Amino acid sequence: MSKNIKHLKSSSHRRRKRKSIQNQIPGKITYIGEDIYEETIINIISYNEDKVIYHNNCSVEQILELITHETEFKHWINFVGVHNVEKLEKLGQLLNIHPLVLEDIANTKQRPKLDEFEDYIFIALKMMFHNEKELLIKHHFGLIFNHSYILSFQQTQDSIFNSIRERIHNKMGRIRTKGTDYLFYALIDAVVDNYYNVIETIEEKTQDLEDRILLDANNASTAEIQLLKREILSIRKAIFPIKELINKLKLSKHELYNASTKAYIADLYDHVLQVTENVDIYREIVWGLLEIYMGSLSNKMNQVMKVLTIMSSIFIPLTFIAGVYGMNFEYMPELGYKPAYFIVLGIMLVMILVLIYFFKRKKWF
Amino acid sequence: MSKNIKHLKSSSHRRRKRKSIQNQIPGKITYIGEDIYEETIINIISYNEDKVIYHNNCSVEQILELITHETEFKHWINFVGVHNVEKLEKLGQLLNIHPLVLEDIANTKQRPKLDEFEDYIFIALKMMFHNEKELLIKHHFGLIFNHSYILSFQQTQDSIFNSIRERIHNKMGRIRTKGTDYLFYALIDAVVDNYYNVIETIEEKTQDLEDRILLDANNASTAEIQLLKREILSIRKAIFPIKELINKLKLSKHELYNASTKAYIADLYDHVLQVTENVDIYREIVWGLLEIYMGSLSNKMNQVMKVLTIMSSIFIPLTFIAGVYGMNFEYMPELGYKPAYFIVLGIMLVMILVLIYFFKRKKWF
Amino acid sequence: MSKNIKHLKSSSHRRRKRKSIQNQIPGKITYIGEDIYEETIINIISYNEDKVIYHNNCSVEQILELITHETEFKHWINFVGVHNVEKLEKLGQLLNIHPLVLEDIANTKQRPKLDEFEDYIFIALKMMFHNEKELLIKHHFGLIFNHSYILSFQQTQDSIFNSIRERIHNKMGRIRTKGTDYLFYALIDAVVDNYYNVIETIEEKTQDLEDRILLDANNASTAEIQLLKREILSIRKAIFPIKELINKLKLSKHELYNASTKAYIADLYDHVLQVTENVDIYREIVWGLLEIYMGSLSNKMNQVMKVLTIMSSIFIPLTFIAGVYGMNFEYMPELGYKPAYFIVLGIMLVMILVLIYFFKRKKWF
Amino acid sequence: MSKNIKHLKSSSHRRRKRKSIQNQIPGKITYIGEDIYEETIINIISYNEDKVIYHNNCSVEQILELITHETEFKHWINFVGVHNVEKLEKLGQLLNIHPLVLEDIANTKQRPKLDEFEDYIFIALKMMFHNEKELLIKHHFGLIFNHSYILSFQQTQDSIFNSIRERIHNKMGRIRTKGTDYLFYALIDAVVDNYYNVIETIEEKTQDLEDRILLDANNASTAEIQLLKREILSIRKAIFPIKELINKLKLSKHELYNASTKAYIADLYDHVLQVTENVDIYREIVWGLLEIYMGSLSNKMNQVMKVLTIMSSIFIPLTFIAGVYGMNFEYMPELGYKPAYFIVLGIMLVMILVLIYFFKRKKWF
Amino acid sequence: MSKNIKHLKSSSHRRRKRKSIQNQIPGKITYIGEDIYEETIINIISYNEDKVIYHNNCSVEQILELITHETEFKHWINFVGVHNVEKLEKLGQLLNIHPLVLEDIANTKQRPKLDEFEDYIFIALKMMFHNEKELLIKHHFGLIFNHSYILSFQQTQDSIFNSIRERIHNKMGRIRTKGTDYLFYALIDAVVDNYYNVIETIEEKTQDLEDRILLDANNASTAEIQLLKREILSIRKAIFPIKELINKLKLSKHELYNASTKAYIADLYDHVLQVTENVDIYREIVWGLLEIYMGSLSNKMNQVMKVLTIMSSIFIPLTFIAGVYGMNFEYMPELGYKPAYFIVLGIMLVMILVLIYFFKRKKWF
Repeated sequence: MSKNIKHLKSSSHRRRKRKSIQNQIPGKITYIGEDIYEETIINIISYNEDKVIYHNNCSVEQILELITHETEFKHWINFVGVHNVEKLEKLGQLLNIHPLVLEDIANTKQRPKLDEFEDYIFIALKMMFHNEKELLIKHHFGLIFNHSYILSFQQTQDSIFNSIRERIHNKMGRIRTKGTDYLFYALIDAVVDNYYNVIETIEEKTQDLEDRILLDANNASTAEIQLLKREILSIRKAIFPIKELINKLKLSKHELYNASTKAYIADLYDHVLQVTENVDIYREIVWGLLEIYMGSLSNKMNQVMKVLTIMSSIFIPLTFIAGVYGMNFEYMPELGYKPAYFIVLGIMLVMILVLIYFFKRKKWF
Repeated sequence: MSKNIKHLKSSSHRRRKRKSIQNQIPGKITYIGEDIYEETIINIISYNEDKVIYHNNCSVEQILELITHETEFKHWINFVGVHNVEKLEKLGQLLNIHPLVLEDIANTKQRPKLDEFEDYIFIALKMMFHNEKELLIKHHFGLIFNHSYILSFQQTQDSIFNSIRERIHNKMGRIRTKGTDYLFYALIDAVVDNYYNVIETIEEKTQDLEDRILLDANNASTAEIQLLKREILSIRKAIFPIKELINKLKLSKHELYNASTKAYIADLYDHVLQVTENVDIYREIVWGLLEIYMGSLSNKMNQVMKVLTIMSSIFIPLTFIAGVYGMNFEYMPELGYKPAYFIVLGIMLVMILVLIYFFKRKKWF
Repeated sequence: MSKNIKHLKSSSHRRRKRKSIQNQIPGKITYIGEDIYEETIINIISYNEDKVIYHNNCSVEQILELITHETEFKHWINFVGVHNVEKLEKLGQLLNIHPLVLEDIANTKQRPKLDEFEDYIFIALKMMFHNEKELLIKHHFGLIFNHSYILSFQQTQDSIFNSIRERIHNKMGRIRTKGTDYLFYALIDAVVDNYYNVIETIEEKTQDLEDRILLDANNASTAEIQLLKREILSIRKAIFPIKELINKLKLSKHELYNASTKAYIADLYDHVLQVTENVDIYREIVWGLLEIYMGSLSNKMNQVMKVLTIMSSIFIPLTFIAGVYGMNFEYMPELGYKPAYFIVLGIMLVMILVLIYFFKRKKWF
Repeated sequence: MSKNIKHLKSSSHRRRKRKSIQNQIPGKITYIGEDIYEETIINIISYNEDKVIYHNNCSVEQILELITHETEFKHWINFVGVHNVEKLEKLGQLLNIHPLVLEDIANTKQRPKLDEFEDYIFIALKMMFHNEKELLIKHHFGLIFNHSYILSFQQTQDSIFNSIRERIHNKMGRIRTKGTDYLFYALIDAVVDNYYNVIETIEEKTQDLEDRILLDANNASTAEIQLLKREILSIRKAIFPIKELINKLKLSKHELYNASTKAYIADLYDHVLQVTENVDIYREIVWGLLEIYMGSLSNKMNQVMKVLTIMSSIFIPLTFIAGVYGMNFEYMPELGYKPAYFIVLGIMLVMILVLIYFFKRKKWF
Repeated sequence: MSKNIKHLKSSSHRRRKRKSIQNQIPGKITYIGEDIYEETIINIISYNEDKVIYHNNCSVEQILELITHETEFKHWINFVGVHNVEKLEKLGQLLNIHPLVLEDIANTKQRPKLDEFEDYIFIALKMMFHNEKELLIKHHFGLIFNHSYILSFQQTQDSIFNSIRERIHNKMGRIRTKGTDYLFYALIDAVVDNYYNVIETIEEKTQDLEDRILLDANNASTAEIQLLKREILSIRKAIFPIKELINKLKLSKHELYNASTKAYIADLYDHVLQVTENVDIYREIVWGLLEIYMGSLSNKMNQVMKVLTIMSSIFIPLTFIAGVYGMNFEYMPELGYKPAYFIVLGIMLVMILVLIYFFKRKKWF
């Protein structure tokens, strides 16, 4: 338990950071989040049906050049390290992105949201992982796309999009032949598909905790249940707004979405529904675990009390009888009667048997 | 209990399989589910008002031939064994089925869904059974239909549609005279009607558990309640999306539905409503069982404590009195007084009676 | 309690019957319900502003004749005994009633529903009573009406409509002067008004149980609370769909409803609202009873434990002191000291008083 | 507690009266309620901008005369004593009021409702008070208004409208210059404003109960919590339908409402919202009180058990040691050893200290 | 705990004030709230792109003059001290503000609301703080704006708008260049941003309480949980209506809102959503704390009981054996047998070991 408590402490420490959220000038871009200051890296994958070109470690100016000149390509610009507010701001100015959007990109505490502008679409999501210590990690993720390019903003380098890079590189599936809207869909799909992993870990944790509680309540602690509860609440907070967003996406009539991509988005919505339903099921189960825990504890207490009651009820009366014949009165006629001792022992034995029979009939053991 | 726990374990083992759900290329058909690899069998029943022809164990090409040439028949093509991804893909190409639909057919974890395309309609449902060990089994079930044929996709051979085959064979009811939309309705109806069986088993399990808890909480365990809870959650997950689907079906204006079939679909919707209401009632009852269990345990504990308290309260003071006259002081005037022993015994008797009266009045026994 | 348990058992026995619900051919009329096979009786009351004619024990053919020839009358045809499927079917054919409607009439487990056809309207409801053993009885009730007649289908003869028969006979109120839609309303109103009785019985049962629990938790059992819960769930299941139905009726623009009847239906809707609100209040109270019960039990346990603790805490230390001076060491200086015995007794008395003061201050008694 | 229980009993007695609700002919006016048969009194206040005329104790015919002839006045007709069904009926006939409305006026159990007819508007509300014994009293209140008069129906004389009468008398505010719709609003506003008082009493009761439970669970009883729960449920039942009614009023386009009055009705809606929100907050708090009560009880039990365990754990082993040296074996070498007695006493002392240290470290006292 | 209880008392004292809410003439301006009678101060900041002019401590007439003459400026009029009803009334008359709006401004218990009039817009919100004693303070805040000025009404001088004043003074961000609608947005935004602070304090309180309960239930009290619950309910009551208001603002087509400001309001709505979601999460956690507390208590009780049972079960039987050989029967053969004493001691030792083994196997320690 002490480990868990320590975790609670450290998370309480981390919280202090967030304080800067308020008193901020609207539209002023400020990084809000933890200080995982890796270097900021911008990589671009330019692709069309025939070719893929990689531009690693680009400057902001290079992006503008690529976009304006190499129009036969679709460009996937991956911006890693949103704490670099200066680069973000510069990028925003060059590509003409609304300051509120840039603010949302730099705010890693931002709630998932979708904003459709006339010439580009912005979506903010949460990527979620369980790290090697089984702690839940949430990363903020932003996406902007228009006809010619797609901009993705990440906190750190994640392996989540590797399969998409591979599909682009190897021309697998439809990704190279379709427009930026399909890549947009594919990236969101990768994020949502990864939620299945998160839920599976939750499933395993729940199952494990439940098994231990059902076997013996002492194997588990209220702290574990509480931590799992908080984890599920945290996941819900990240996933539930997405349901609404994808539905909005599905119903949107924005001209940036291709009709054929719409079927994929409907499918994506289906996945999100399935994920949220699963989260709710684990929620319901985990919320019930404490009751199960209490039931197990009560059951145990019952058994402890029965042992106490049986032992006390049998031996306290007997001790009393022994006490009576231990009194030092001068005149106690039984004491001189020779078989008295054995008669008293016999009576005690009978009392024991009667009480045992009584408790057996009550099914106390 | 150990049996239940074992079951929990094995189900936790089975879960590992699902992991492949994510990182999948959209539209690429992959079988997701347990490995019940029976052989894949395609049986076709071609029927019209006058004739029924059976084609067993067909190849995919035969299907295309039947459909394109024997247009005076309606064809019910039953595809058993959706793990055979190659055959599925081939079938999809020949009959021009959207890859996302094929993906949903091969994914046995797919949530129930309805997709209306211009020239065919797709629905995915769950078939549910309790096997001979009273464990809940869920099978994925897919249906595609257009004017001339109906395609049903099953995981394994189930007896659920035998009555429909019989009705076709014997020309019972309206099934031979009506179109494929009626068969479509009849198949869904068979699946939904089967839910009544599932709910009845749940009803019996609930009743049995409740009876045992009410008689004596020790007859039941928290593990049993938890298992029943999980079973009901699993059933809800399968049934609740169907409510929405059938409503969509009911309101749909797709030209594949015949007006006269619409009345049957409205009736089907009614059945689904009744099923979901019943599930919710058992849900409510089972969720309350743990509280009842706790109440029974508390009641029991109360009785145990009363026995302990009565025994202790009567004999501990008496033992003390006996102890007093067991002291070895040289000068204890009472000891020499002849009737003292009997007086002390008398006092003890009076104390016993007073305490018994006291506890009786408190209604402790 | 054993009586309640027995009741639970017998109801579990009755359940087996329902099994026939599934695997049924849609539109095939099958009686589903318990076997209360009284004889089937059809009585007709033909009335208009001037006359009332009674036709008892009619055959199906007589109905058709009456309807087609005596058009100056409105006919209330009361069909008692819906288990008689043959008569039902014949009636359906002669009066041109949709097979699905007949199926719903013969299915006593049917959920309340409203179906508006072009030339007639069908409604299915539940009549509820508490029998003399205070058990809840539910009877299925079906109504069909068009311009010239009203058909009511009952499981058994009930006294619920006697006041309506009387109003027709004695020309009380508006019933003779208005159309079949008013009779239709009056019959539903009689069913709904009767729910007030059911709720009152629930109110009395709840009040009685609550009073007993609040006085002394031992006066009640978890089994009683559970039975009451199930009864309320069963009532909710019957009443809640009706709310929706009557609202549909209220909003319906079907030409069979007269404008002046609409005001009465709005009033009826009001009654249904009031009934459902009351059911929900008793639901909330009964759901809370178990918690109250637990609170009372805990309170009791507290008192039991206090008695035990007081008795033990006072006498166990005293017994120890007595034990010390009961030891047989050869050299125990106090033993020879003459007033020692009385000093020890005095010390014991002081200890008793101190402990009693201590427990008094803790308000333990 | 016994007082509360008695109250429960007497309320259960009062309930019997309601039985007459069912089997009533629709539109037949019947008084439903308790028998508080004061005399029926009709008072009329006729006012316009210049004059106020009081007509006390009018007959029904006088009303008609006033309305038809003195058209330069607005008339507020206050009908006290709705049990007088004959007068109600006569009034209804003279003023042409729908029988269902009269039925709702005479039924003091009627749910709050709003009915807009072409030439008048009817609203039924509940007035609520806490009487001097802090019991909740609900009175039924009906209002009818058209362009020239307003009819208010009360069960008994209440002081709630005195401030309005004063405002009319003294020409305070806008009431004399505005139409009957403003008086209509003012009367409803007076009823709703009075709910604040009811909620404040609830707030005080809740606070008081909570304080007592938090200080010591024994200061409160489950019966008190249950009574408060029922009171809040009863208030909710009266207030919640009103929210909907006032919203309907707000959105209504009936020509009887003046545009300038609409702003006041919007304000009234706001008040109702605030009242319902407050009721829900107290609901949530009171529903949680039982849990708090259980927590306090558990806490107490813990302390009781600790006292018992400490006393028993210290003295039972010591008593055993004393018992050993109280045995009468002929050969017990320690007995003859002179300092043995003091050594044993010393060992006992050490044991006491060790156990006290052990319990201190466990923070048991 | 006593401190908390005292707080409860004093808050119960403060409540009495509210009583004046009812029986008030609609549209009559009355101050409702606590008596924090600072002096009423009106400060005006007149600004445009080029200049900022400060007018401190203005009279009501000065306002009118400024507004009517200096039209090249936008004026922010900050009215501190809404208890000054006379000034409010005068201001209302001069600026032509609806009396109901003035009533809402002077009523510090007013629910958050939005009223859009033809030529101005009114919004009422709650400002919330935690004071230095960590108690929640709520201040009523009203805003009126039209094209040329913005009127803000506060209870007392708060530091919450200092950053906005700074931004105006230093021409930071867009505030000087944009219209009054942007200032309107900025003020609401400042209020909402401040909610993040409130929620963070709640987060810390919750975390702290949870940590203490999980470590040892005795470190926390039910009173603390209850206080936190009430605090969260109070916050919800202030924040939840705002969600609806801002949404209304977002969807409003009132010509006072500039299109470019709309994007900021959408962003504001997002913030409100995030705040309400967070409140609900803490709500859920705090509501669960009592259960956690009960679980911890039960766990503790279990351990206490085990200690008692182990001690009693070991020593009570041994004491009985010692008692047997302490009896004074003349004929007890064992007593004369020399090694008997050691044999009995040996038997006792064996019994101790057996019982310890038994309890160890049951994992009781």
